Amino acid sequence: MKTLIKNVYTLLPDGTTPLTNILIDKDRIVGVGEVPEDFRPGKVIDGTDHFAIPGFVNAHTHTSMTLLRSYRDDMALMDWLHSIWPIEDKMQSEDIYWGAMLAMAEMIRTGTTTFADMYGPYMERVAEATMDAGLRGVLSRGIIGTAPDGEARLQTNVELFKDYNGAADGRITVMFGPHAPYTCSPDFLKKVAKAAQSLGAEIHIHMHETLDEINGSMKTYGKRPFAWVEETGLFDGKGTLAAHCVHMDENDIEIVKRHHIRVAHNPTSNMKLASGVAPVPRMLQEGICVALGTDGTSSNNNLDMLEEVNLAAMLHKVHALDPLAIPALTALKMGTEYGAEAVGIPDIGKIEKGCKADITLFNMDSVAWCPRHDLVSLLVYAASSRDVDTVLVDGRVLFENGAYTTLDVERIRYETQRAADRLTK
Amino acid sequence: MKTLIKNVYTLLPDGTTPLTNILIDKDRIVGVGEVPEDFRPGKVIDGTDHFAIPGFVNAHTHTSMTLLRSYRDDMALMDWLHSIWPIEDKMQSEDIYWGAMLAMAEMIRTGTTTFADMYGPYMERVAEATMDAGLRGVLSRGIIGTAPDGEARLQTNVELFKDYNGAADGRITVMFGPHAPYTCSPDFLKKVAKAAQSLGAEIHIHMHETLDEINGSMKTYGKRPFAWVEETGLFDGKGTLAAHCVHMDENDIEIVKRHHIRVAHNPTSNMKLASGVAPVPRMLQEGICVALGTDGTSSNNNLDMLEEVNLAAMLHKVHALDPLAIPALTALKMGTEYGAEAVGIPDIGKIEKGCKADITLFNMDSVAWCPRHDLVSLLVYAASSRDVDTVLVDGRVLFENGAYTTLDVERIRYETQRAADRLTK
Repeated sequence: MKTLIKNVYTLLPDGTTPLTNILIDKDRIVGVGEVPEDFRPGKVIDGTDHFAIPGFVNAHTHTSMTLLRSYRDDMALMDWLHSIWPIEDKMQSEDIYWGAMLAMAEMIRTGTTTFADMYGPYMERVAEATMDAGLRGVLSRGIIGTAPDGEARLQTNVELFKDYNGAADGRITVMFGPHAPYTCSPDFLKKVAKAAQSLGAEIHIHMHETLDEINGSMKTYGKRPFAWVEETGLFDGKGTLAAHCVHMDENDIEIVKRHHIRVAHNPTSNMKLASGVAPVPRMLQEGICVALGTDGTSSNNNLDMLEEVNLAAMLHKVHALDPLAIPALTALKMGTEYGAEAVGIPDIGKIEKGCKADITLFNMDSVAWCPRHDLVSLLVYAASSRDVDTVLVDGRVLFENGAYTTLDVERIRYETQRAADRLTK
Repeated sequence: MKTLIKNVYTLLPDGTTPLTNILIDKDRIVGVGEVPEDFRPGKVIDGTDHFAIPGFVNAHTHTSMTLLRSYRDDMALMDWLHSIWPIEDKMQSEDIYWGAMLAMAEMIRTGTTTFADMYGPYMERVAEATMDAGLRGVLSRGIIGTAPDGEARLQTNVELFKDYNGAADGRITVMFGPHAPYTCSPDFLKKVAKAAQSLGAEIHIHMHETLDEINGSMKTYGKRPFAWVEETGLFDGKGTLAAHCVHMDENDIEIVKRHHIRVAHNPTSNMKLASGVAPVPRMLQEGICVALGTDGTSSNNNLDMLEEVNLAAMLHKVHALDPLAIPALTALKMGTEYGAEAVGIPDIGKIEKGCKADITLFNMDSVAWCPRHDLVSLLVYAASSRDVDTVLVDGRVLFENGAYTTLDVERIRYETQRAADRLTK
C-alpha cells in the first residue's frame, strides 16, 4: 500500500525544513516533494501544521526497567543498586513482557521508532512486545559474565540471535550484550567475541560510565577498560555500540576511532547518577559516531528522546562554557541519523528516498511553537515530545492523532502496576 | 464562592502526597482533608487520578521576549545580543502586550501561577495582560541606567509601582528592576535605591550571571559586583530578588546572607548561554532562599517551570558528582514554596489552610506516570508539564481539562506571529 503525508514541514538531511510531501510505498520512502499524478495513496495523512522528522533512535535503554520507574531515586549508586537488584531477580517472564510493553507505549507516544535494548532474562518476551507494538528493536541479552550462570546467559544471547535476528520483516536485529568490563573477565569477553563473530553479530556494551569503573580496572588490570577489552578481540567483529563513554583519555578515543566503535551518549542518566560529562564535542570533532540514549527508566526516569536531544545541546554548552558547543541540528541528528548508524541500521534515521518510512510528526499547535522563526530550534529548545501525534514505522501507522493503533494502553497500565506492586511488596 | 477539588493526590508542605480533598473559599484554601457537611461548593473539580501541587512560581523571566523565541540560537553572547537588541528597540506597545499574552498562555498551560517579570518599555501592557489572563505577576521595569534615557526609565518604574502595585485584588505587585551592575553605575543604583525605598518597593536585578561581568567589574571598580552594589545601599530596602548568582565567592555569599537576598536560579538559561553552574547546593546549605526561573524564551526557549525543576535536580548532581546534591522534593520546593518567598508573596507556594488557592493539577493518565511508586519522583524525573490540565489562581479556574477559560489562544497565536514577522522582517 502507498501512503502520502501531505503538506508537512519536513526535516531533510541537510537541515532545511521545507513544506512538502512525503511519499511512501509499503515500508519505504519513495519520494519527498511533488506528488506525481500516478501516485495513488491508499492512505493520506494530512500534515498541515505538523513537523515531520525521522523517528528518534534510542541507542541505549533497558526497556523492562519501566517497572521500577521512580521506585528508588536520589540515592548513592551502590545503595541504589542494592535496592534494585533484589527486585530485578524476582522478575518473571510476564514482568519482562509487560515492562517492555509499557516502554513500547511510552516510546511510540514520544516519537521513538527504534531502540537498542539490553536486559534479560526472557529477552524473547521483549522481542514479542516489539513485534506486538510494531517498533524496530535492536535487542541484546545483558550478560553478567561474573555471574554463576554467565556461560548460560551467553548461550541465551546465541539463541536470541538465532531465533530473532532479522525477525518481523527485519524490524528486529540482535546484538550480543556483555554488560560491562567490570562484570565480565577478559577470558569471558574472548568467548563473547568468538560467539558473536561466528554469527556475524554486533556488540552492545557499557564502557567507561563512572570513575569507579576506571579506577577498579586500573587496580585489577593495570589498564583502563578500553585498553584491555581491545586486547580480548571484542571490538574486532562486525561492530560495537558502546554506551556512556563518559571518562575518555586520548588512548580511549584512539581505540574508539580505530575500531569504528559507535557511542551511545546518555545525558540524563549521566546527570542523574552523577557519572560525569562525556567529551561529546571532542568525539564528534574526531569523526566518532555519537548517538543518544535514555538509559533505563530507573536512571532517567522516562524514555523521552527529545529530552535527550535537548540536554545534549545544553549540557555540553555549560560544561565547555561554549554556547556553540553542540548546536540544535547536531543534537537532533544525534537522536536520529547518528542513532541509525550507531545501532547498525543504515537505512533509517533520515527522511529521504530509499530510507525506511520511520517517521514522527509533531503537531505544532502548542503555544511553545509560536512564533515560527526556526523549526529545528523550536523543536530542540522549546517543544515537548507530547506534541508528537503521529508515528510510522516501516510505513505502518502506530500512533495517529494521539491514539495508539497497536496497543491497549489501559491493559498495559493495569498489568504493569500489578507487576510493580508484586515485585516491590 | 466555594470550590472543592475532591479525591486528589496532594503535595503537602511536608513532602507527603496523600489522597485527599482541597477546600477553597473565594481566593483561599480553607482546608485540606475531610469535607465538612456544611461545606457547600459552587464548583466541584474531580481530582481523580490527578496530582495537585502549588502552582509554579517563575522567579525570573522576560515575558514579552516570547516574540523572539528561537529567532537566533547557538550564537556567542555578544553576537546574539547584537542581533536581538535592534529587534527589541522596534517593539511597540501592542508587541509588548501580545508577547506577554503568549507568555500567559504558555505559563497557564504549563502550570505556572506566578511570575516575576523584568522588561519594558510599556510594562503597563504586561500588567494588562496579567489581569486579562488572571495570573499573578510581580512586575518590574528593566532599567538600563547607562542608557541616555536611564532616568526616564527609572521614572516609569516609579509610575508602574504607583499605578499597579496591589492591583487586580493584589495579584499584581511591582518591584524596581535595575537591569544589572554592568548596565547601571553606582550613582544610578543609589537613585534606584532611594526611589524604591521611599515607596517600600523591592528590587529585581541580574547579578553575577557571567564571568565577563565579574571581570569587567574588577577592571572598572576593583571589586566584584556584589561588593560595590552593596555599598550603594540597593540591598538595604524591603528586599532583593537577584537573578542568576552563577559566579559566587565567599564574600558574595556573605552579602546575600547579610541582606536576605533571594536568588532566582535559571538552570536552562545558564546551560544554554554557557554562563556556568551556580553553587546552588552550597547556597541552600547556607540557608539562602534559592528559587527557579526560566529567564526569557530567547535563552531557554520556553517558560516550562517543570523543566527547570527537573534540571535543578539533575544539573547539580553531575556538577558536584554527587547523586544526592539536590533531591527531587528540594527541586520541587525551589519551583514553588521557595519561589513564593523569593518573589515576596508569603501566602502562595504551599497547599495548606490559609494560603491563596494557586493550584496546578497534573493528569496522571500518561504512561510516564506508570507505575506509581513515588509521585514526587515521577513528577520531577518522568512527567511533562503537558500533563497539566487544570490551573487555579486566587481560586479562579484559568485552565480546566486542558482548555483556557480566560484566553483566546487562536487570536494570541495570530497576533504574535504577525508581530514577530513585522519585527524581524
